[in-house]
Formats: sequence, C-alpha cells, structure tokens
Amino acid sequence: MTSTVTALRTLDIRFPTSRELDGSDAMNPDPDYSAAYVIVETDAPDGLSGHGFVFTIGRGNEVAVAAIDALRPMLVGHDADALLEDLGATSRALIGDSQLRWLGPEKGVMHMAIAAVLNALWDLRAKRAGMPLWQLLSRMTPEELVALVDFRYLSDALTPEEALQLLRAAEPGRAERERQLLERGYPAYTTTPGWLGYSDDKLERLAKEAVADGFGQIKLKVGACLEDDIRRMKIARAAVGADVRIAIDANQRWDVDEAVEWVRALTPSDPYWIEEPTSPDDVLGHARIRRGVSPVKVATGEHAQNRVIFKQLLQAGSIDVLQLDAARVAGVNENLAILLLAAKFGVPVCPHAGGVGLCEMVQHLSMFDFVALTGTTQDRVIEYVDHLHGEFVDPAVVSDGHYVAPTAPGFSSQLRDDVLRDYEYPAGPVWRAIAEEDAR
Amino acid sequence: MTSTVTALRTLDIRFPTSRELDGSDAMNPDPDYSAAYVIVETDAPDGLSGHGFVFTIGRGNEVAVAAIDALRPMLVGHDADALLEDLGATSRALIGDSQLRWLGPEKGVMHMAIAAVLNALWDLRAKRAGMPLWQLLSRMTPEELVALVDFRYLSDALTPEEALQLLRAAEPGRAERERQLLERGYPAYTTTPGWLGYSDDKLERLAKEAVADGFGQIKLKVGACLEDDIRRMKIARAAVGADVRIAIDANQRWDVDEAVEWVRALTPSDPYWIEEPTSPDDVLGHARIRRGVSPVKVATGEHAQNRVIFKQLLQAGSIDVLQLDAARVAGVNENLAILLLAAKFGVPVCPHAGGVGLCEMVQHLSMFDFVALTGTTQDRVIEYVDHLHGEFVDPAVVSDGHYVAPTAPGFSSQLRDDVLRDYEYPAGPVWRAIAEEDAR
Repeated sequence: MTSTVTALRTLDIRFPTSRELDGSDAMNPDPDYSAAYVIVETDAPDGLSGHGFVFTIGRGNEVAVAAIDALRPMLVGHDADALLEDLGATSRALIGDSQLRWLGPEKGVMHMAIAAVLNALWDLRAKRAGMPLWQLLSRMTPEELVALVDFRYLSDALTPEEALQLLRAAEPGRAERERQLLERGYPAYTTTPGWLGYSDDKLERLAKEAVADGFGQIKLKVGACLEDDIRRMKIARAAVGADVRIAIDANQRWDVDEAVEWVRALTPSDPYWIEEPTSPDDVLGHARIRRGVSPVKVATGEHAQNRVIFKQLLQAGSIDVLQLDAARVAGVNENLAILLLAAKFGVPVCPHAGGVGLCEMVQHLSMFDFVALTGTTQDRVIEYVDHLHGEFVDPAVVSDGHYVAPTAPGFSSQLRDDVLRDYEYPAGPVWRAIAEEDAR
Repeated sequence: MTSTVTALRTLDIRFPTSRELDGSDAMNPDPDYSAAYVIVETDAPDGLSGHGFVFTIGRGNEVAVAAIDALRPMLVGHDADALLEDLGATSRALIGDSQLRWLGPEKGVMHMAIAAVLNALWDLRAKRAGMPLWQLLSRMTPEELVALVDFRYLSDALTPEEALQLLRAAEPGRAERERQLLERGYPAYTTTPGWLGYSDDKLERLAKEAVADGFGQIKLKVGACLEDDIRRMKIARAAVGADVRIAIDANQRWDVDEAVEWVRALTPSDPYWIEEPTSPDDVLGHARIRRGVSPVKVATGEHAQNRVIFKQLLQAGSIDVLQLDAARVAGVNENLAILLLAAKFGVPVCPHAGGVGLCEMVQHLSMFDFVALTGTTQDRVIEYVDHLHGEFVDPAVVSDGHYVAPTAPGFSSQLRDDVLRDYEYPAGPVWRAIAEEDAR
C-alpha cells in the first residue's frame, strides 16, 4: 500500500496586527503578520495532512502563495511515501528545478515557498511517525541526518565526513538529554516588552513582568532615534536589574560605521547583543561591526537567505550568535546544514521567532540541536513573543522562561481550522468585517 | 497639465526555446526564455507607454508577474510626472515598502519585479525626453545622477561625495565620447558558439564565424563534464587562434576547491575569464577561487542580487570583471550604484546579456558608463547572443563586433505588439499550437 499526494492546498492568511503596533520596529512600522499557508494532502487512510507556511508581514503574501502554487506539479500525483522517506532527495529536487531556481537562486520568495512545502512535508512525516519533529530528528542516525543535507557550496567549510563526526560525537547521552529536555524545557528570551511602538510605561511594566515570569533575557527594538534608544535602554536596565541580559535589535537600519557609533552610545546600559545592525547580506560589514562594538556581541540570521550566507558569516568571524529562521531558508533540511555549520564553528544558535508560528517551529530545531548535535543550552536561548499562539493546534508553551518540549506528533505548524477560515484574505469574515468598518 | 498613471499591465510572455537547446548550460539544461512583462500607461496626450520585464527561464514566470502586480497600488492613480521626475525617490519608495521588503529584502522575485517596473519607468522617461536612455543619462548632471542612487549600506565603500567626484571628473570629454560612441559603437563578445547542447562541429563552425564577424572574444559554457570541456576548449582555441579571448562560464556549478581544480585543468587552452564558478552569494569563495586560478580572471554578477553583494565582491577582491544584469537588481537606479562602485574600485564592467531583451537594455548602461563615468572601453565588452532580437521594436544591433549605439528614444525594452500577442502563456496562439501538438 503506497499513498499519493492528492493536493497542495494554499491559503492567504493574514492577521490585522498593524492595528495594535505589536511587532513594530525601525524598519517595519505596521506589519500585518501573515502566512502563505500550504496543506499537503494524501490519499493515505490515516487522513493526516502536512502544514507549512511562509511568514510575511502583509502585502505580498499573495506572491508567496503564487510561489508555493508553482511547486504543485512537483508533488501532486507523486508517491507520498517516497517523497517523505527521502526528504534529502525531495529537498534537492525542489531546490534544483532549473527554471524555478532562476528566480533566486536559493533566495527570496521562491526559496521561502520551498521552505513552506518542505516544512509541511516534515510535519506530515513526524505525524506519521507519531513523534514531535525534534524527537524524530533526534532519533535518526548520523548517516540519515547527513543524507538530508545539501552540501553544495559548503565543502570549503564543512564536509559530509565532518558533519558525521559531529553527530557521532553527540550520540552518547542522547537519551539522557531527551529526558532532561522533557523535564526542564529549553531556555527562552522575550521580545514582548521591546516593540518600538510601545510607551515608556508599557516598556517598563512589560520588562518587569518578563523578569517575574522567569526570563533571563529580554530584547528591545532600537534604531529609529538615538535619544529615544538611550532613554528606553536605561528604563529597561533599571527595570530588569544588572543580571538580566538585554539584547537590542536594529532590524537592518544602519550602515556599517553608523552601527558602530550607535551601539557604542548604548554600551553604558550594557546591551548583550546587537541584532541585525545592517543589511543581512553584508558579511564583511558584520565582521567590521563586530570588531567595532566588542564586547557587545553581534547577532544576525533571520533574513539570511541561505546556507551560503551563514557559511560566510561564520568563516569571516562576523557573528557571535547565529539566529536561524524556520521558514526563510529551505526548511528543516537547510536548517540542519546551518546547525551543523554553527556546531563546526562553535557559534551558539539562538533562533529568530515571533511572527506567525515561528516560535512553534524553531523550538523543534533547537531541541534537536541540544539532544543530538551540540548537547548544550549554554548561551543558547530561543526568542519568544507572546502573541498568536492560541491560533495553533499545538501552540508553543513557555513556562518559567523555558519552552516546554512539545509532545504532540508533527512540527507544531498547523493553524486551527477556524483560524484558517476566519483570517483568509480578503474573503474571510475577519477581513470582510474590517473592510465594512473601513468603508463606514 | 499633469498626467496620471492609468494602468500597470502585466503579461506572461514565454518563448519555447527549450526545443532548440539554445541557452543550454551546466545548470540550465532546458530554458524557455520568458519575460514577466509590464507596461506602464498614463493619460498623457503623447500616448507613450513604458516597457520593462523580469527575465526568467520559464516555470515561475507567473510568480514574477504576481510580484509586479503587487506593486500596482504604488503607481496606478499616482502623478506620473512626479514619479518620472524624481526616479530616485520613486526607486526608494518601491524598495522601501516595509511589507513587501520582507519578501527579500532586496533580493529574489520581489526585487526583480521592482526592476521591471523601474526599468519601464525609465523607458517612459527616455521616450518622453526623445532620447535613448544612454544619452539621457549621459547628459544629466553629476548631482542629478547621484540623487538617483540609494547609498544605504554603501557608505563604507562609496559615499555620495565620492560618487560626485567620479562623475565630475568625467564631465570633460562627454560630448567627444558621445560622438565616438555613435561612430564606432561599443565592443561586444559572443556566447552564440558555446552552448553546452551544441555538437563539436557546430561549436567549431560558430566559433570561426564569430571571428569572421569581428568579435575579439567568445564564450564557452563549461562545468558538466571535465573531459568534454577540455576537448571543446581545444576545438574552440584551434578555431579562433591565439589572439581571440575565450571566456568560460560554469553557471554556478562548482564548490570552491572544485572550481580551482577544474579551471586549472583548462588553463592550457588559455581561458580569459571563468564566469560564475560557484554560488553567486559566495563573496569569500570567489576571492579564494580568484587567488587559486590566477592569471585566469574571475567574473560574476548576473545573479548577484543587489548592490550589497557587489560592494563586498569589490571589497574582498573577489572579481576581475563585474557582470551586471539589467533586470535582476533594482533596475537603472541600482545599476548606477553598481557602475559607480566598479569605477571606484577600478574593476571593468562587462554586462551579462542574452535571454530576453538583456542585450537591448545593458547596452544603454555600458554606453552611459563610457560617456559619463569611466570614459573608456578598455577591457570592457558587452555580452551578445544572436537570438530573440527581431521580437523587439528597437532591437540591439551588433556590427563588426560592436554594439551600434541606439538612437531611438527609450530603453529598447519594448517587445512588438504581435509578439506580446503570439507568445502570451498559456493562451497565446504559439502556446496553443504547442499544446495541441503535444496532445496529438
């Protein structure tokens, strides 16, 4: 009995978040958090489906939907078991289509669409296996894991043999770390207090709440106005005390020299890392900024387009902290490559999250990393934003400053059916109501 | 009297080139050269329209069309004169839309769509001015040109003041060089002989024809099979003699060390440059390859996503030859930034062309560079592929190995009306006939 992919359903899902200034930063003043959503269906009697998406911030979500639609012929009608059994080959086939590749290559909308589809396939595979994705990955052999990775363009930094060695070295203790993870969870930090659109009072109140909630690190958005940033940073430092780390995030706002000056001006309030100081494409610029702002650490990655940029960020010594994103690079497979690169170079991974479903997905990657690759959570934290979780079937849960390890089968990437219905853009009831209100 | 943008018409245009193996290389075995085409219309009494496009190689062309469609609200209903008068501001507005920017940022499908729209606006502006684009640009003041450029992320390599100095230094002699250009044209090289899908006999015949046609440089695709490449390189060298340059092009096929080895194996036949040896994102990799293959030069750029990558390629000493593309970065404006960067670093620009309409567009950029920026054509050649020109209203003309300077107003980017009708995908008559034939 084999099963066949019967449908690749796509949906344009948008949440009207811009009305609350949640998610506002120096580059993104009014995001409507959105998902170009895909459901992979098969004719298997288990009735399971795989869910994935591109996270966007509103306009253009329909372009990402069109990009996912372009991948449909590579899946529908194909043997689902074969696609799921060798997700390394499936990943290479999706990335390797020569005509679609021209639209990147391996970057931007087309690459994010491949991420959505691959993540949906991983969701389905984990559901079939009856395990959360982190556990499924953590129980694979080093050989199986290496076969998932596309090493093209990586061999000057990481070979399959080196990857195997890293994974084999972490085999002892997997079971014990899985136990620890299920018991303690994985450390989180929170961005909730620090959005640019919030008042000083709201910042102070939320920063104090974060400490009370057990977080050892918070994050502030900066980069619009230096004077404001100095004031807000002082408020935050006074609120959390000396021992809680405060990361700052400029969302690509600066040129290289400007970044160095701005961060130095904030250094008296002891920022832990500066995130996205400049263009995510600027490997050499980040290296120069890192030299200029030390001991403040440099972090980036949420907009790094693929493993080739991450390779270079590591080779050039551009970053202290690597912030992978679950849905910008080509899904679980490319993120395995990135985790292996980070492990090779000894740089901690602190994933980007927030948005729609990013907390839900990245937790699986970090938990795999802990159980089966680096074996540590030292200086590693997963971003957490307390927003848009109840919309998921298996929402991320943070307790006492830690992500609780998910136990439900899958990638935690499935939105509830009623949410898929209510927030479809522009025809869903939420958007029809907004249109009617705006028309009044 | 002002005019308003009344429509942004988009068309999915595809040419069934895969049936002839024209355009075949090691990464792109069967391209259907295509254009996600845009026409900007206004209510001005002149009846002029602006034409631009994203060049793709087939599947996914509809995704690029969707991306252009996403830009419609930023143009339609807006003051056309204001948009055209300050194309620097227009460019920054298109790139700066925070929600759409998330889909890149400044890379991939969304960025290429912005290129299409900006190039269409430049076409319209040049038509209104009654000049070919190269001449319009060449007659602007240094201040006007600098105002067109977005210097964000560039200031560590090039400041507006430095750009002004470069342009001012080239002001004397503009008129004389314009005269020279109209008289002699601009040097070209040809890729026509070297497609991978061609037989040895066809390669030899076309290589000899290229020399007879006055070309001082040809190009061969390589990278699929070393043995074949060695043989084909020998055939080509014997056909053209010792004095004609032979460039080779691997279309991103190799990892870093593999590139060095492969090129060294071809060195006995004296290749002039190796083009796209590896991932276009790999700034550090290109630098290492360049050190390894010297004296063979390293060229790349057709897939470089934006000015930040070009900045780094120049800063890291990764390239001997910069190959800009008219339609991958954000149109004329970003290409001005790239030409200025290249001038600052003293690296010659040899644009990528071929495809659909790339020869037509890049000639304007190189000719501007000669008249008003670097003032030289030394070691500079524009790629020429003898294919898909008659389809344009103002086709590129190469004579005696030189591009003839266009004199018709505009950017030479307009396809003929009958071509737009016949090749529309999938409903145009050419594609309907193919579908009927395939169904038989």
